[in-house]
Amino acid sequence: MSFTYEIEVPADVPVSAKGTYVENMKMITHGSGNLMLFAGDQKVEHLNDDFFGKDIATDDASPEHLFRIAKEGRIGVFATQLGLIAKYGKDYREIPYLVKLNSKTHLVKTDQKDPLSPQLYSIDQIVRFRDQTGLAITGVGYTIYLGSEYEGEMIREAAQIIYEAHQHGLIVVLWIYPRGKAVKDEKDPHLIAGAAGVASALGADFVKVNAPKKDGSSSAELMKEAVAAAGKTKLVCAGGSSVSGEDFLKQLYDQIHTGGASGNATGRNIHQKTLDEAVRMCNAVSAITIDNAEIAAALKIYNNQ
Amino acid sequence: MSFTYEIEVPADVPVSAKGTYVENMKMITHGSGNLMLFAGDQKVEHLNDDFFGKDIATDDASPEHLFRIAKEGRIGVFATQLGLIAKYGKDYREIPYLVKLNSKTHLVKTDQKDPLSPQLYSIDQIVRFRDQTGLAITGVGYTIYLGSEYEGEMIREAAQIIYEAHQHGLIVVLWIYPRGKAVKDEKDPHLIAGAAGVASALGADFVKVNAPKKDGSSSAELMKEAVAAAGKTKLVCAGGSSVSGEDFLKQLYDQIHTGGASGNATGRNIHQKTLDEAVRMCNAVSAITIDNAEIAAALKIYNNQ
Amino acid sequence: MSFTYEIEVPADVPVSAKGTYVENMKMITHGSGNLMLFAGDQKVEHLNDDFFGKDIATDDASPEHLFRIAKEGRIGVFATQLGLIAKYGKDYREIPYLVKLNSKTHLVKTDQKDPLSPQLYSIDQIVRFRDQTGLAITGVGYTIYLGSEYEGEMIREAAQIIYEAHQHGLIVVLWIYPRGKAVKDEKDPHLIAGAAGVASALGADFVKVNAPKKDGSSSAELMKEAVAAAGKTKLVCAGGSSVSGEDFLKQLYDQIHTGGASGNATGRNIHQKTLDEAVRMCNAVSAITIDNAEIAAALKIYNNQ
Amino acid sequence: MSFTYEIEVPADVPVSAKGTYVENMKMITHGSGNLMLFAGDQKVEHLNDDFFGKDIATDDASPEHLFRIAKEGRIGVFATQLGLIAKYGKDYREIPYLVKLNSKTHLVKTDQKDPLSPQLYSIDQIVRFRDQTGLAITGVGYTIYLGSEYEGEMIREAAQIIYEAHQHGLIVVLWIYPRGKAVKDEKDPHLIAGAAGVASALGADFVKVNAPKKDGSSSAELMKEAVAAAGKTKLVCAGGSSVSGEDFLKQLYDQIHTGGASGNATGRNIHQKTLDEAVRMCNAVSAITIDNAEIAAALKIYNNQ
Amino acid sequence: MSFTYEIEVPADVPVSAKGTYVENMKMITHGSGNLMLFAGDQKVEHLNDDFFGKDIATDDASPEHLFRIAKEGRIGVFATQLGLIAKYGKDYREIPYLVKLNSKTHLVKTDQKDPLSPQLYSIDQIVRFRDQTGLAITGVGYTIYLGSEYEGEMIREAAQIIYEAHQHGLIVVLWIYPRGKAVKDEKDPHLIAGAAGVASALGADFVKVNAPKKDGSSSAELMKEAVAAAGKTKLVCAGGSSVSGEDFLKQLYDQIHTGGASGNATGRNIHQKTLDEAVRMCNAVSAITIDNAEIAAALKIYNNQ
Repeated sequence: MSFTYEIEVPADVPVSAKGTYVENMKMITHGSGNLMLFAGDQKVEHLNDDFFGKDIATDDASPEHLFRIAKEGRIGVFATQLGLIAKYGKDYREIPYLVKLNSKTHLVKTDQKDPLSPQLYSIDQIVRFRDQTGLAITGVGYTIYLGSEYEGEMIREAAQIIYEAHQHGLIVVLWIYPRGKAVKDEKDPHLIAGAAGVASALGADFVKVNAPKKDGSSSAELMKEAVAAAGKTKLVCAGGSSVSGEDFLKQLYDQIHTGGASGNATGRNIHQKTLDEAVRMCNAVSAITIDNAEIAAALKIYNNQ
Repeated sequence: MSFTYEIEVPADVPVSAKGTYVENMKMITHGSGNLMLFAGDQKVEHLNDDFFGKDIATDDASPEHLFRIAKEGRIGVFATQLGLIAKYGKDYREIPYLVKLNSKTHLVKTDQKDPLSPQLYSIDQIVRFRDQTGLAITGVGYTIYLGSEYEGEMIREAAQIIYEAHQHGLIVVLWIYPRGKAVKDEKDPHLIAGAAGVASALGADFVKVNAPKKDGSSSAELMKEAVAAAGKTKLVCAGGSSVSGEDFLKQLYDQIHTGGASGNATGRNIHQKTLDEAVRMCNAVSAITIDNAEIAAALKIYNNQ
Repeated sequence: MSFTYEIEVPADVPVSAKGTYVENMKMITHGSGNLMLFAGDQKVEHLNDDFFGKDIATDDASPEHLFRIAKEGRIGVFATQLGLIAKYGKDYREIPYLVKLNSKTHLVKTDQKDPLSPQLYSIDQIVRFRDQTGLAITGVGYTIYLGSEYEGEMIREAAQIIYEAHQHGLIVVLWIYPRGKAVKDEKDPHLIAGAAGVASALGADFVKVNAPKKDGSSSAELMKEAVAAAGKTKLVCAGGSSVSGEDFLKQLYDQIHTGGASGNATGRNIHQKTLDEAVRMCNAVSAITIDNAEIAAALKIYNNQ
Repeated sequence: MSFTYEIEVPADVPVSAKGTYVENMKMITHGSGNLMLFAGDQKVEHLNDDFFGKDIATDDASPEHLFRIAKEGRIGVFATQLGLIAKYGKDYREIPYLVKLNSKTHLVKTDQKDPLSPQLYSIDQIVRFRDQTGLAITGVGYTIYLGSEYEGEMIREAAQIIYEAHQHGLIVVLWIYPRGKAVKDEKDPHLIAGAAGVASALGADFVKVNAPKKDGSSSAELMKEAVAAAGKTKLVCAGGSSVSGEDFLKQLYDQIHTGGASGNATGRNIHQKTLDEAVRMCNAVSAITIDNAEIAAALKIYNNQ
Repeated sequence: MSFTYEIEVPADVPVSAKGTYVENMKMITHGSGNLMLFAGDQKVEHLNDDFFGKDIATDDASPEHLFRIAKEGRIGVFATQLGLIAKYGKDYREIPYLVKLNSKTHLVKTDQKDPLSPQLYSIDQIVRFRDQTGLAITGVGYTIYLGSEYEGEMIREAAQIIYEAHQHGLIVVLWIYPRGKAVKDEKDPHLIAGAAGVASALGADFVKVNAPKKDGSSSAELMKEAVAAAGKTKLVCAGGSSVSGEDFLKQLYDQIHTGGASGNATGRNIHQKTLDEAVRMCNAVSAITIDNAEIAAALKIYNNQ
């Protein structure tokens, strides 16, 4: 039992890159069209807050933990910064990678300065890295802070990234978060749908948005406007802050089956666990995302039953 | 019965691109010299506000609605972002496209920061896209916010776009809106005429301005100063917020026959309707714009009589 | 009777471009060394204020009026934006053109933000335009706002423009206006002389400055410091706001014969008149500027006697 | 007795540059994997404060003092600006150099403007310099001020530097200091660990951080979180302000043996001494860092016993 | 009797440019190693204030005065903007020139905005100019305002200029002035020494600093810290505002013989005099700077005895 999916190649992928695009999409969705993205870019985004402290497994203190999980667990793609891939990639050749192209720390808050997160590498450099290393660099990611005073710079960089990445058959995932002094409610469903529409207008393959909330509470139902607005751009939701394994898997199931999401992007809910538990969580998430498994079946995997 | 028109090729179109320029102009004006531009760039400009909500047909929730209309209705050209064309263009090869080169959201208001909307793609990239896809990419569009503290950056990008687009035979439509802390009355007829004059000085083929208003009310008579100032740059008016079909068509007729406009740029008044009604509206608008039809005849088309 | 003048070629004009430089200088000064520059860049600088309104001939509402004057009147060179030349140039091949490379609107005032007017085209693009069209593109113009917080950007662009324009034999006219929060008296003769000295240090061929004023009144005598400071850069004065024809011609005569100016740059005092009167004014101005005519003779021309 | 170490080459070093990378790493770590970096970039960073004044040997007044120390003492690599290397390098060919690519003065304080220190040379220029001079240019260094409003520009420059330096086999040392209005406690161990994680995400070979402090006091124990977060990026600590020789060597020993540091970066504690004492200090530091010497043995070297 | 000097070529001058570098250095120091720089860049820096007014010879009103002095007087090198050299250079082929690459006016004061003076020409353009004209373009100059909020941009441009100028054998003189809201005492000897150290770190051939002052008074003794900090970068002092000829020459003598300066950079103290007196002043200054003359001998020259 699995999702069925025929891969559509957008028109900005030239003939010469179609094969690569299709292979990359197949690899990261396991042919299902759904994405299980293991997010490991927080060493810049949240500094060491997500990796060391109360309720975080000591395994997580070293960056290699992320690679061990991505290797031993079943994932779609592992998203992280190029520097980490350069340092550990040779020992973890089996992992499909997605290079996160921009990252900022959380030190400067929005009330001091609206967020801006510049692109760190050109697509040409990513392609050169792929070709020189032989690693499975399947795509790139980029974050836009919509509503920031600097949104224009990020929208432009995102547009350029998608255009040039597609020229080389790379998949593009946009992270779009409304944020800035002009944004009153970052999780507003209508605003999240607007973010999804921007991803669609830019031609992203996937867009990761925060789970929408109304009156303080979240539900998969609230995602439908965004999924429609995204059109052929597939929408995945953030895992967000850590919750219990069961709640997390149930939420994910609803996002896909009720909300219409095409997968998930999960970081802390995986890597803050010990290697063993993290691997089981990966496998459970992948069962739901890729294999169309029911919650009970996924829980069995997570609980190692 | 139709408008007659001999296509003039500006001097910055080199010999090698003249044929392309003439064909593009013929295609988007149906040989009439008048433009019926179907505007579909609001997924960035207005996020999901124009696509989902009260009084908006549910058809409009998905971006594909725009393509269905552009295919089944009679239009001059469909203006939207490159990403959407990349995602849907292969299934809608018959549509003449105009790539909107810049877009910003409406989240940051003018009292927080004057508007700036940077160019997302180079003309070289648009030409490469055209040549790789074989799609009918006939032109490009760009918005200038005149009176913004950043107008200089946008005037420069517009000048560059026109110069390089003409080198490749692409038609250029400028959207020019006076906006910023320095602008007290965005619809003032004399200021709108100034905007038209800027388009002329930059050598745009078409300029889209807002319908001028005096003492709060609009009339086609008020457009004449702008049409004169535009010179050989053809002026089209915005459809603006949605009004009744009959009022809309009458307004358009007056803009052309009294005001001297060379067409129209319409978005929400078309795509917020169901597919069927949207198509009929396109056809009615095109009858007036391209075929020189009377209001009654156009209304018959719109009312499917 | 006319001015005598031997054309000096500056050292930054390479051997390969000397012939072009000399021919351009001869053409725009009619061999006199003095410049009658017909300024038609106000459609951006002043929007439609200079072209439509009380006391402005209705002829002036359309940009083509400028070209009709430049063709039928006797001028040195017609300075305007490239877009207008692209639109009308083919029908007005006999006009010598100077492309104004930067232009800003007057919407944002100095107390809101100091003036900045970025360069719109590269010299390479101007040369390509010249070569593709065969039009008499003889030079380029650029405005510096000295004392603006952004003067550095404009001084740099001006320096680059002069260097590269001279590489291709193009003449360069700088408009230099002290303006910004730091400038208390824009017309101060000593400050105007400073502006002239900057033009000289940058190696401009001509510099257009405002007529200096002391204690609120202007006199040709006040220009002498600036003419001396300009050295081999020839200084021309602005026509400024419209005055009576006789006053205007007398002022011009004094600027040349008393102040030492090498011509004039006149816009509104010409184009706000009907075509016929505008042409007569051009001819009268040219008689004084190029032919060394006396005021009475020039007035006869202007009055068609 | 020495540290044992097998050199790992990161994946962003292409095959063609592996030999160079390995040789550079061997040279600057004396095969030990640990780095004794002699920091001599303060002539910009601190102007003349570190070189002239009370308690500073008069030898230090001239920049040549730094080169004399680096030549006569035992060091891993001498980090300084390119201009100094250009002036003195020919006479000091035996020194392994690391070019510090950015430097700012301390004149503008954080409460006036957050720190920004732009890159002064491209990697291509460094490589050209290496090849033209034959000097042992083994690597480059760059400082990031994390938490500055300009951190994005510095993170991007650092990412580019590492990517391109590795293409040529050059070693990269990042200096990362949390600093800016948003940073309350620059020495906080958790924040220092975050800085180390950023270096890891960027793929630096070494990262130099300030010694972490908790409740105002420093201990090697506090470094462990950072060393773990750095992963395969080796962490070295700053020498900081001058302390007694014995305290300094003891601190360094603890940083390596307790904290897990891979060396040290020392400037003022060396060059503010006379040449003779500075050389002995270098040798003592190197004994601990490279030869795995005990404190007593190192002190003997320093005391010339 | 003269200074003896062996020319050292820095390592960033490649073999192919060494001959040019040595010849340029010889030419501008007359083989003495000491520089008599005639500074003529004030037409931008101070507008017309230094050239017209009370106590200024009327000769100075025209820019050609500077060239006449540089030709008829004995100088090391004449520093001015490229535009002036382009206008007058053909008639003054015997002058050794140094192109001042950046210049700003004094209109915007530091309390309004910290100083920034951008580079006007690339080194490639200077080299092209040298080669096309055959003029003796021996070097380039650039001003850094240390302590300005924009110091980073200027330090980067200076670093690039030195690197690329040396590639072509051109000599580089840096003008470094501490200035900006963060700078309390621009003439503080320790701060001036810091400026000299920055020049050294950037690898400049010469650095021009203001004469240091302590408690409001200047003495050659105060320069020693700066001369030491400059290392192999030779330090010259500014002439500053005009003083009596005798005082000026005495001051210069002390700067060289007591302070250790390697010459001087003098502008107003020369060009504000009549041609005849200016020439005599040049010759007197050169006698001290180049020929190691005593004050009395120099005064004789100045007084034409």
